[in-house]
Amino acid sequence: MEKRIAVLPGDGIGPEVISSAVKVLEVIARRFHHSFEFVYGSIGGAAVDAYGTPLPDETIALCEKSDAVLLGAVGGPKWDQNPADTRPEKGLLAIRKHFGLFANIRPVKAVPAILHRSPLKEDLVKDVDLVIVRELTGGLYFGEPSRKTHDAAVDTLVYTRVEIERIVRSAFDLARMRRGKVTSVDKANVLQSSRLWREVVEEVRAGYPDIEVEHQLVDSAAMKLITNPAAFDVIVTENMFGDILSDEASVITGSLGLLPSASVRTDGFGLYEPVHGSAPDVAGKGLANPAATMLSAAMMLRQSFGMEEEATAIEQAVQTIYEEGHCTADLAGSGVRPLSTEQWAARVAEEV
Amino acid sequence: MEKRIAVLPGDGIGPEVISSAVKVLEVIARRFHHSFEFVYGSIGGAAVDAYGTPLPDETIALCEKSDAVLLGAVGGPKWDQNPADTRPEKGLLAIRKHFGLFANIRPVKAVPAILHRSPLKEDLVKDVDLVIVRELTGGLYFGEPSRKTHDAAVDTLVYTRVEIERIVRSAFDLARMRRGKVTSVDKANVLQSSRLWREVVEEVRAGYPDIEVEHQLVDSAAMKLITNPAAFDVIVTENMFGDILSDEASVITGSLGLLPSASVRTDGFGLYEPVHGSAPDVAGKGLANPAATMLSAAMMLRQSFGMEEEATAIEQAVQTIYEEGHCTADLAGSGVRPLSTEQWAARVAEEV
Ligand SMILES: CC(C)[C@H](C(=O)O)[C@@H](O)C(=O)O
Ligand SMILES: CC(C)[C@H](C(=O)O)[C@@H](O)C(=O)O
Repeated sequence: MEKRIAVLPGDGIGPEVISSAVKVLEVIARRFHHSFEFVYGSIGGAAVDAYGTPLPDETIALCEKSDAVLLGAVGGPKWDQNPADTRPEKGLLAIRKHFGLFANIRPVKAVPAILHRSPLKEDLVKDVDLVIVRELTGGLYFGEPSRKTHDAAVDTLVYTRVEIERIVRSAFDLARMRRGKVTSVDKANVLQSSRLWREVVEEVRAGYPDIEVEHQLVDSAAMKLITNPAAFDVIVTENMFGDILSDEASVITGSLGLLPSASVRTDGFGLYEPVHGSAPDVAGKGLANPAATMLSAAMMLRQSFGMEEEATAIEQAVQTIYEEGHCTADLAGSGVRPLSTEQWAARVAEEV
Repeated sequence: MEKRIAVLPGDGIGPEVISSAVKVLEVIARRFHHSFEFVYGSIGGAAVDAYGTPLPDETIALCEKSDAVLLGAVGGPKWDQNPADTRPEKGLLAIRKHFGLFANIRPVKAVPAILHRSPLKEDLVKDVDLVIVRELTGGLYFGEPSRKTHDAAVDTLVYTRVEIERIVRSAFDLARMRRGKVTSVDKANVLQSSRLWREVVEEVRAGYPDIEVEHQLVDSAAMKLITNPAAFDVIVTENMFGDILSDEASVITGSLGLLPSASVRTDGFGLYEPVHGSAPDVAGKGLANPAATMLSAAMMLRQSFGMEEEATAIEQAVQTIYEEGHCTADLAGSGVRPLSTEQWAARVAEEV
């Protein structure tokens, strides 16, 4: 197959982890006889510096002509004082909105080789295998008015039935391919938007009699993710709750450095990026862990290109390296010798 | 001293745990020569059933004539389908708003005797000693418009500078009496209300040069509460972030059943309630753990009545019973014989 991939390295460790993942994709292309064309664009703080905006038109045009987008990370203290429109993070929000990437998919699965790194007791996390489906283009991060004066500020949480229905359907469809359970998270005892959310979930579930459904309040879900994370299969929730819960979930297994994410719409186009951030403090030192970006590339192969075998090859290679006890600086433990970002990439490429 | 205490048992296990706490307060009154008058009022589902509203005028009048309010818990599946205005939870929101109880104070401290119950590794939680200061009468749970049609719904997050300033000052004052560190949590990379929040924190800190201040994004705070909870001293945040983070924090030490909370304003009047909910499934069985309600009563003695010694007497009594290995059904572990709610209350009363 011929595929064009828009590559947006971004800030901090973004360029390093992206370069490692691209190397692995090049090996995949050779081994499976595909042709991947990588076209590079600017986003985030790097784009603010070069173009004065975190999502330049050039980058949008590039992504429009591509089959999928692979992104590193954005942001850093350098731009923390910037006005709202030239914040690196704004580039992320804008690209999600522009391309209608309404579904953010974040799998969290216990990795036996690094289970001992979990902050939770191993018994609680060893069977964790959940996916958070977060609505990504509505809610409080996009509603109007959103404004601030000297004396007051307002943000607005709006959801339409249509927006809720499509994300809830994505979650039910996903649950069907997994263990058949959906946990919908809201704050229906207080918020009107959550009451609409719950209503729509009840309507959609009628079409999925095979799926087990439960409603959880967001405060209670924040507790259960810690006290019994293995009980979850698919969690579906609105944008901000999803932001908080997915980051919370990302640390319970001790494998934040290994977590990929996909932001997709229904036609197969999607943006893939690691869950971790731009880690400006370790940037440029060759210490970054490229595993999550490689696994994001694997998600891209599977979800946007339908390349199941290729995706699995990357996933198994990463797994193998972990099982051999190799890791990167962020995961180094007693007795384990960390590899540099480049050495890691080289080992995975070999293994693939 | 003579004090009148408004007692609102509420729903589920509310009446049981309240009755235990009142018994302990009666013993305190005798031992320390105070006179406590307990006046009983209705709130939550119980009030909906009796008066058709979750916060009847009678209850408001009762609280207005009292020096502090002790509350059990509200809510239960019985009222889950009620329209917005006759939801038990609405009673809580309404009483907070009516009395201007803008500061919700939730201490979370590791209890050595039950540390083994923590879902986290004991090393991570043994030194946890933090307080969450949550803004309680503004933000998304109160902003207008808040409405829902068939096709869409909206909620509004509004904060004024004045609202932010007073809660932030409470947090700084509290930090001064503790380890001198404030972590302010917001989502300033996306929300305008959070940018105003951060601005105000920066202004307030100028008057507290002795206090160490850090800003954390809410998603990142949700991670750090798990990966390094002992690093926090005072956490201050807006209403909804506080709702989520305080529930998350409440489970990390394994002592949810022991956590008290205070909702206060600046003149000493306050509402005190356990962090746990109404637990309808165990209600009426004499299995409920009254410890958190007793500790809430202790907070009331200290914060609303200035009775330091009396508060400490309750806290030490509860502590002693835990150290003796007695517990209630919710905390029963291997080899530990659980006491009923009443037996527990009797033991604490003896100890006091
Ligand atoms: C950077 C920020 C805007 C973004 C979000 O909150 O959506 C990030 O936290 C994420 O979760 O992808
Ligand atoms: C019952 C509900 C309205 C309430 C809240 O979210 O404020 C509760 O969760 C709490 O934290 O006290």
